[in-house]
Amino acid sequence: MPLILITNDDGYQAAGIQALARAVAPLAEVYIVAPDGPRSGAAASITCTTPVSYTPLAKGLYACTGTPVDCIKLALEQIVPRKPDLLLSGINHGDNASVSVHYSGTMGAVYEGCMKDIPSIGISLYLQRGQRYEDNPVSEDTLSAIADLCQRVLQQGLPQDVCLNINLPVAHKFRGWQICRQARGRWSAEWITASNPRGQQSFWLTGQFTDLEPEATDTDFAALRAGYCSIVPVTVDTTAYAAMTTLQELIP
Amino acid sequence: MPLILITNDDGYQAAGIQALARAVAPLAEVYIVAPDGPRSGAAASITCTTPVSYTPLAKGLYACTGTPVDCIKLALEQIVPRKPDLLLSGINHGDNASVSVHYSGTMGAVYEGCMKDIPSIGISLYLQRGQRYEDNPVSEDTLSAIADLCQRVLQQGLPQDVCLNINLPVAHKFRGWQICRQARGRWSAEWITASNPRGQQSFWLTGQFTDLEPEATDTDFAALRAGYCSIVPVTVDTTAYAAMTTLQELIP
Repeated sequence: MPLILITNDDGYQAAGIQALARAVAPLAEVYIVAPDGPRSGAAASITCTTPVSYTPLAKGLYACTGTPVDCIKLALEQIVPRKPDLLLSGINHGDNASVSVHYSGTMGAVYEGCMKDIPSIGISLYLQRGQRYEDNPVSEDTLSAIADLCQRVLQQGLPQDVCLNINLPVAHKFRGWQICRQARGRWSAEWITASNPRGQQSFWLTGQFTDLEPEATDTDFAALRAGYCSIVPVTVDTTAYAAMTTLQELIP
Repeated sequence: MPLILITNDDGYQAAGIQALARAVAPLAEVYIVAPDGPRSGAAASITCTTPVSYTPLAKGLYACTGTPVDCIKLALEQIVPRKPDLLLSGINHGDNASVSVHYSGTMGAVYEGCMKDIPSIGISLYLQRGQRYEDNPVSEDTLSAIADLCQRVLQQGLPQDVCLNINLPVAHKFRGWQICRQARGRWSAEWITASNPRGQQSFWLTGQFTDLEPEATDTDFAALRAGYCSIVPVTVDTTAYAAMTTLQELIP
């Protein structure tokens, strides 16, 4: 029986992780080791300044005080009985397409699995501002397409140092997968002034996302706009190989 | 006069950021917007669940309650008078070579600058466990090589979507730059049990790093071992282009 380890960055109570665990339960022994509350925007952060701990809540379900990456590190060394055959993170309540991948706690956990040689997949739902997962749940046939994909990855693995960043559109029906590249994009207008009864000015992070390649047809956002589920293969090797020659000119 | 924005993940009081600011002061108008305390391991995390604020401490020096990425986002929209010509992050007390780049708050801030089309450079000092920056400060001629490199980047820029991850060996003399790729590496033995007077078991993050390519000569760790300062060009496009064909076979 294969072992699937699941985490997220919305916390173990989130509807998305529960749907994902239900979808893949027939494939494997499933362990959920997830944060004890929201960790949106945690990226691949780790907890360095305090200890972390975890609490078993039910068979195969553990809540952790740390970040999504902490959850994976703790699970691998302290919780699961053997190396997982597959790591899943999500289903995130909100997309992690384009440059948002860099802030994503969902994808942080996926990088961690990938760096530990575990086939690893992050899954996120592209909600418009104000939309809630609970009102726009991932459809049953999409969940079943996800389970099929997981089954294939369990059988065939993924290339070394490569993990998957999957984003789903809100849709009643599964229209298909599209393998994409990450769209160029930019966040702007990122702060609103917070009301503060103590007087000090403070700011809430918010922001407007702009797809810088709205005409492209091969990006994750293009796939989402067309109603497809996007799959970006992501590498944990950050080297910009194409830039090495240019750089040689810069260096004395 | 160009404008240089500096941050780090060790906090504005750290010796490394002070040395860096001093080194580049002759080149530009310098703004430091840095966390108000240690944020090691913050990666590219952002603060989503609380507001953040900043405090002016002196001319061009601001302490921020958020993460390194928050510092950059706040600086760009609320603090600096115009778009910076260069963003620097560091000098980090500890290396960010190989896969450690993924956990690095230093590099998180650099990604943020790069995504905002600002030439951005992260600089970190490779300390052995137990070594302190204060006892192994970056040498004056290395600081001056860094200032030269910054001058060149101010003049020539960097390729689109590419930033630099620089790591320095502890050395009395600057031996030169080497343009490298990110070494494959792995962290293991990552937890030690924390003593806890309340009884609940908890864990401190620690770990042992293994260079998985100890024979390679073109990686950042190879350069550091040979006493050179490594420069890895890093892309914010995470797409694993080489894996796209393999993936097509996986997808029904």
